[in-house]
Amino acid sequence: MGTTRVGVIGARGRMGVQAVRAITAADDLELAAEVGSADPLSVLTDAGAQVVVEFTRPDAVLENVRWCVERGLHVVTGTTGFTPERLDVVRGWLAAAPGVGVAVVPNFALGAVLMMRFAELAARWFESVEIVELHHPQKVDAPSGTARLTAERIAAARASAGLGDLPDATTDEVQGARGATIDGIPVHAVRARGLVAHQEVLFGGAGETLTIRHDSFDRVSFMPGLLLAVRRVADRPGLTVGLDPLLDA
Amino acid sequence: MGTTRVGVIGARGRMGVQAVRAITAADDLELAAEVGSADPLSVLTDAGAQVVVEFTRPDAVLENVRWCVERGLHVVTGTTGFTPERLDVVRGWLAAAPGVGVAVVPNFALGAVLMMRFAELAARWFESVEIVELHHPQKVDAPSGTARLTAERIAAARASAGLGDLPDATTDEVQGARGATIDGIPVHAVRARGLVAHQEVLFGGAGETLTIRHDSFDRVSFMPGLLLAVRRVADRPGLTVGLDPLLDA
Amino acid sequence: MGTTRVGVIGARGRMGVQAVRAITAADDLELAAEVGSADPLSVLTDAGAQVVVEFTRPDAVLENVRWCVERGLHVVTGTTGFTPERLDVVRGWLAAAPGVGVAVVPNFALGAVLMMRFAELAARWFESVEIVELHHPQKVDAPSGTARLTAERIAAARASAGLGDLPDATTDEVQGARGATIDGIPVHAVRARGLVAHQEVLFGGAGETLTIRHDSFDRVSFMPGLLLAVRRVADRPGLTVGLDPLLDA
Amino acid sequence: MGTTRVGVIGARGRMGVQAVRAITAADDLELAAEVGSADPLSVLTDAGAQVVVEFTRPDAVLENVRWCVERGLHVVTGTTGFTPERLDVVRGWLAAAPGVGVAVVPNFALGAVLMMRFAELAARWFESVEIVELHHPQKVDAPSGTARLTAERIAAARASAGLGDLPDATTDEVQGARGATIDGIPVHAVRARGLVAHQEVLFGGAGETLTIRHDSFDRVSFMPGLLLAVRRVADRPGLTVGLDPLLDA
Repeated sequence: MGTTRVGVIGARGRMGVQAVRAITAADDLELAAEVGSADPLSVLTDAGAQVVVEFTRPDAVLENVRWCVERGLHVVTGTTGFTPERLDVVRGWLAAAPGVGVAVVPNFALGAVLMMRFAELAARWFESVEIVELHHPQKVDAPSGTARLTAERIAAARASAGLGDLPDATTDEVQGARGATIDGIPVHAVRARGLVAHQEVLFGGAGETLTIRHDSFDRVSFMPGLLLAVRRVADRPGLTVGLDPLLDA
Repeated sequence: MGTTRVGVIGARGRMGVQAVRAITAADDLELAAEVGSADPLSVLTDAGAQVVVEFTRPDAVLENVRWCVERGLHVVTGTTGFTPERLDVVRGWLAAAPGVGVAVVPNFALGAVLMMRFAELAARWFESVEIVELHHPQKVDAPSGTARLTAERIAAARASAGLGDLPDATTDEVQGARGATIDGIPVHAVRARGLVAHQEVLFGGAGETLTIRHDSFDRVSFMPGLLLAVRRVADRPGLTVGLDPLLDA
Repeated sequence: MGTTRVGVIGARGRMGVQAVRAITAADDLELAAEVGSADPLSVLTDAGAQVVVEFTRPDAVLENVRWCVERGLHVVTGTTGFTPERLDVVRGWLAAAPGVGVAVVPNFALGAVLMMRFAELAARWFESVEIVELHHPQKVDAPSGTARLTAERIAAARASAGLGDLPDATTDEVQGARGATIDGIPVHAVRARGLVAHQEVLFGGAGETLTIRHDSFDRVSFMPGLLLAVRRVADRPGLTVGLDPLLDA
Repeated sequence: MGTTRVGVIGARGRMGVQAVRAITAADDLELAAEVGSADPLSVLTDAGAQVVVEFTRPDAVLENVRWCVERGLHVVTGTTGFTPERLDVVRGWLAAAPGVGVAVVPNFALGAVLMMRFAELAARWFESVEIVELHHPQKVDAPSGTARLTAERIAAARASAGLGDLPDATTDEVQGARGATIDGIPVHAVRARGLVAHQEVLFGGAGETLTIRHDSFDRVSFMPGLLLAVRRVADRPGLTVGLDPLLDA
């Protein structure tokens, strides 16, 4: 089995630098090209890249994806800002490029992806569930995107299983803590110096609780998931959203 | 050293039954009298009780305390509903009964008392702090009384040390999770089947966190604290609120 | 859909009493017979039981299972002591009774079953894994049976994925803590007053950890799993070991 | 109040670099001198340093401390290798230098110091206690020095309070997990990729547990404790071991 040639767009950014390092260290991958903001994308085709890793900005990513898809290059992107409408645009391009795969991955941490998957699997078996997400105090959004997505997937699994509202007898209440109720699932948002990115999903049934917790300490945790996506995106033509479907590829 | 003779008012209630059992099992205490709702309080003096344990209801406790104080009996009560005004009433009676001790104890769990004490001691050393309290879904109040008290003590300790507001960059927020901000300290309230009574205090500073957690699984956890109060109340004339001051007696 | 008629052998024991209560409360099940140690098993067939719940002792369970299988009754048993040899004996009886199902379930807690399943699914994605199990100090065996089984399943999943030994640079070591290494997976055993039955599986990869924790506070946590087994055992002829295969039935 | 002039020996090492940065950023401290391995110590006196921060190696620290003490400079050192004999040597030098303070600090993390203090305070109130320490897999010693010290302090506090052995009914045991029993206290040592430095002290009594946990993610967590020691060492003549006594200065 030969190696796969990989190009990186956004190679000088925080994630791009990590990506270059991880690809270089992987035996089955070969770093073909590094594209900075001043470089033309043609560097990628000139270097014979087969898969392109894209870490740029919301205002640049779409054009980069289009360019790659039109030239038959598979793409793995971790850039944010993919609304449903933007995903549809990408689907349109892919319809005209059979065999090309694009993976849009909001979270490359395998632990986070598994946490969400397990939370979805557990949801139907427990009467109660709440989420506590904990982050550093520089974070501007609350609850976190991962927590919202987890809540949505749990809520959908509960609905499929015919579960109703969570039990809650609260009548005497003072309000105002950071956090929200997403699709009926309470999500508590803790912000404290010293924290990085953490999330706990607590399920409760009569006499027992099941807790699934993910702790992320460092951006390096995204690299195994990135490499997994790079290795599998070519075998999964069309659009893939999230790392989850790639785990079973 | 002889044994102390102890009477129990409310001896047939849930807490009273536990108290009778614990006092009976203690080598240095002697169960002198059990007073149910139909029994006259004079059973206590007839039996030579020195310390009285009181577990009744908010509408009965004050009259019971007065009766005991007037007769020189020390009292330990776990009945709820003691407002600042009610505590002042008790102080008034005690002013006329030098040497008599009354302990009003909202929470007999040693672990909870130590959690609050440690939280107060740690407060000045950390930039961030938040509280997560977790209880069964039949609980009607949120946040819990213990969590509110913890937040108040932490806030006071921070103010003494000259600490300002907690760092928090949140600008993009969805609200509505169960919980409140008490004296500036966020208190998150989780309710789930399977839980009993739990609280976690999370302190955060640059690069580190310190977490103090109390888990209470059973009413039996109140007995060591109750026995401690019974043993020490006579050596502490006047009014004592909470178990905390008795720990160092 | 009609109700299923259920008989309970060992109906006066701790688990049996809970089982009787749970079956009685379930709309789709009917309590047909309660068999105590002095009652003949024929009470079950006289009452038209279709499924039999068995909670007795290792020296009684085999004979009870044989009796039921020979009469075409499905069995769910939580009695301990099923060695591989004993399971083979049951398989032999079932070979002669097509259509009859027997479920031997060491742990009915859904949370424990899901914890093990998720641990097995996560195992291939992380370089490190260790188990901490925590129980009350009256427990005589260490590590717990559930922890050993979890370790075995994790070790098998790692082997399938081609993972090698866990990273560990320890050279300067004092030994002697309670706990064992099972199939290469460290299992730490904590015993403390106040605990009931708890287990944590900690996975670690570069920059992140994933923790799966189960807390069991009360025997009532076994009832949803028991009812699940009662409802599904008839649709799964032959021998089923553990609740896990029944979850997907 | 004027500023304190501070010199740093080992200013180019990992801890020294952090120290230089932290001292520079503190309003009440002035960085007077940075001493690398090629620089003469006289740089310190030439620059008028009043307090010296020392982060070097076990084979260099003693000579550095002697040099400073003889010249009336206060010292805060985080270098390892201080045996009881070495501490006695330092005490000897200090006896001849009244008014000079030396602080030997194995762990500058305030959270770790408070964890140990709280563990010591809680010890007398609980029947059971165990320690779980968790570190990255490059760590060569097990259990960690902090865990051993915590166990020793807990054991001493239990002995003072007249507590006996921990309750433990284990009779059927498989052994071999990483960890030790230190002065009768079980210390479990977990090693996993992704972890940094963490410790949990679990206390258990009837029906309740109290858990004190410290998580250290980054060397920057040592800086608040270092600055505290620098500010207070001059007011505490003689030898101080550990940060703990300085907290109350």
